[in-house]
Amino acid sequence: MKKEKRKGTAARPFGKRIAALQRSAGSLLCVGLDTDPQKLPLHLRGKKNGVLEFNRRIIEATKDVVCAYKINFAFYEVLGRDGWGVIERTRGLIPPSVHAIADAKRGDIGNSSSYYAAAILKTMDFDSVTVAPYMGRDSVEPFLQYDDKGVFLLALTSNEGAFDFQYRTGGRRRLFEEVVSAAQQWNGARNLGFVVGATKSADIRAVRTLAPDAPFLVPGIGAQGGSIDDVVRYGSTADGYGVLINASRSVLYASSGRDFADAARAECLRLNAAIGAARTAHAR
Amino acid sequence: MKKEKRKGTAARPFGKRIAALQRSAGSLLCVGLDTDPQKLPLHLRGKKNGVLEFNRRIIEATKDVVCAYKINFAFYEVLGRDGWGVIERTRGLIPPSVHAIADAKRGDIGNSSSYYAAAILKTMDFDSVTVAPYMGRDSVEPFLQYDDKGVFLLALTSNEGAFDFQYRTGGRRRLFEEVVSAAQQWNGARNLGFVVGATKSADIRAVRTLAPDAPFLVPGIGAQGGSIDDVVRYGSTADGYGVLINASRSVLYASSGRDFADAARAECLRLNAAIGAARTAHAR
Repeated sequence: MKKEKRKGTAARPFGKRIAALQRSAGSLLCVGLDTDPQKLPLHLRGKKNGVLEFNRRIIEATKDVVCAYKINFAFYEVLGRDGWGVIERTRGLIPPSVHAIADAKRGDIGNSSSYYAAAILKTMDFDSVTVAPYMGRDSVEPFLQYDDKGVFLLALTSNEGAFDFQYRTGGRRRLFEEVVSAAQQWNGARNLGFVVGATKSADIRAVRTLAPDAPFLVPGIGAQGGSIDDVVRYGSTADGYGVLINASRSVLYASSGRDFADAARAECLRLNAAIGAARTAHAR
Repeated sequence: MKKEKRKGTAARPFGKRIAALQRSAGSLLCVGLDTDPQKLPLHLRGKKNGVLEFNRRIIEATKDVVCAYKINFAFYEVLGRDGWGVIERTRGLIPPSVHAIADAKRGDIGNSSSYYAAAILKTMDFDSVTVAPYMGRDSVEPFLQYDDKGVFLLALTSNEGAFDFQYRTGGRRRLFEEVVSAAQQWNGARNLGFVVGATKSADIRAVRTLAPDAPFLVPGIGAQGGSIDDVVRYGSTADGYGVLINASRSVLYASSGRDFADAARAECLRLNAAIGAARTAHAR
């Protein structure tokens, strides 16, 4: 596995690192490797290494047109103990030029949290990880202690259930705003980003106001109906970067045939063009 | 792995199943298998199957004096891909008479949630799982669809960070109360229980009032300082069951020598006696 060189000084803040990565990749696109064993092309379905082979082809075909891959652990854990090996091997296929996100949504108290962090950020050497905020500060800080790594804390998620608690108001602020404000006071906040769903576009702006420099991982375009234009308009940092726009199904299953990898690349290029148009329209 | 027989009719509510199990076990005690590779007795430390062997000895020595084991995934995931195998094999060592809890604190949107649920409740055949509530209804319901299984939803956790968001008030209720109330309206709520930390004893009563029949998984006695007496007094259901009182470190590391399993059993007996005394004192 790759190992970023420590330079003896503290790494730059997470937002600066993501901006530099996006600038050099020429893309704000993150491809979600939510690889569903039941949706593999027929020639790979049911094969022993089908999921890994699928991921390998997707990564080879798209690695020069994306800035990040996001590996959703649920789709691998369902494979049982082999699944963990597939996560490790898929992560190993992601080149150093592309940001590798562990979409694991972990969260536990201090001691357990430290082990989850070590498993994902050290042993598997992911560049960042998604973490749930419900258990508060001491459940998140252990993930923030890795100098050259990042955390995307769940703030406002793209699903319907987001309305159950995240929008709950207490005093002047909604819960997701409270999470964003509080977290920026925690130890290691320079390594902090947020998950902000594209389906809640009016509120992406609220999060950006509270966290001007933090990178946002933005799921919910494509199948879930979020608007690329809104995400770029309301989510970008002042320098025009800082949103990692995730697409999963629309890329992975662009074709169900043997040409799936070429079709995935074509879909990435289409998304890059749409993102590029939005960036031009809303350049500050 | 064991397979509970489906009886053709829906399983009883989770609370009834837990009460029956506790009655026949003669114990409310849950032992947390938070097995730390760095804290193994010297003769097992660094050995290839050290953690599994440790768990085997602990389970053999305590399985007739507890009602549940709780496997904290963080301590296994830190072992890398082997860790997942150790979880599976440890789970296989737990006899059908004892409830097997996957303390995994998962939570993601519908599709991913379904796969996490399948991995834990179907493939690994755990009896229940801990789930985080932040993402709301559609992130939890997939876990509630297994008729003879249960979910412990995080309500009020035992750590300091619980004060960051869980106590946040909006209108008349605090967030943890809102979580408990809302969740009971969700599909599959008959399979629902809650995590309620022993360190917040005054508020265990508030949760019990809102959820009279749900089982509570209660961490935080022992090292964290929660009171067994308060947990029994404020947490029990009307029939005197319904709290699974978890102890981890005080049992696992009762001795650091070769007698660790005997010492663990002795600590379980001591805890059972303390719980029994509290039950007698507060019998209704």
